[in-house]
Amino acid sequence: MQVKGRIWIELAEQSMIGGGKAELLDKTAKLGSLRKAATEMQMSYRQAWYSINQMNTSAPEPLIILKRGGKEGGIAEITNYGKSILKRYKELQSTFQKFLSEQNNI
Amino acid sequence: MQVKGRIWIELAEQSMIGGGKAELLDKTAKLGSLRKAATEMQMSYRQAWYSINQMNTSAPEPLIILKRGGKEGGIAEITNYGKSILKRYKELQSTFQKFLSEQNNI
Repeated sequence: MQVKGRIWIELAEQSMIGGGKAELLDKTAKLGSLRKAATEMQMSYRQAWYSINQMNTSAPEPLIILKRGGKEGGIAEITNYGKSILKRYKELQSTFQKFLSEQNNI
Repeated sequence: MQVKGRIWIELAEQSMIGGGKAELLDKTAKLGSLRKAATEMQMSYRQAWYSINQMNTSAPEPLIILKRGGKEGGIAEITNYGKSILKRYKELQSTFQKFLSEQNNI
């Protein structure tokens, strides 16, 4: 028998960031491009855009800014708020993984 | 912002016990009746029966034994295996709730 779980951060009512969204946010910030992040995650650009847009509009502040233009058709820039949420989420994930392995070693 | 999560125990492949099933198991054992447990949980008897049956057949051992007959039409008895799983799940839930409040106080 194995203990499993999932964890997420509620930023506001109707606004949460968990595994998939956090990964999309992270990759978009690192690659500076939503299109590249979507490709890496095998999502459609449309899905990825919808997901980022939903995060940005439902959270207290936007997490990532998408700008049109540029050589590769659009630049994505993470905000300070986005950075702080992502950092918090990563810490949380790692503490939670430790919690799960402790529980699985009881 | 608030940290939230969910936790469950995987008893075998395709077999897990989490919030709803644990509550049903607990109530059925306490009340000695699946019908009463279903009523308390505002589930149909059919749903409750299906859920218990699914747990019993997919887990390594049955968790609860349903017997026909008796004055109130059917008796439910938790097995030792069911008891141990339920105990483990309750401990886990309480440790996890502590974990969540700690995370929400950072």
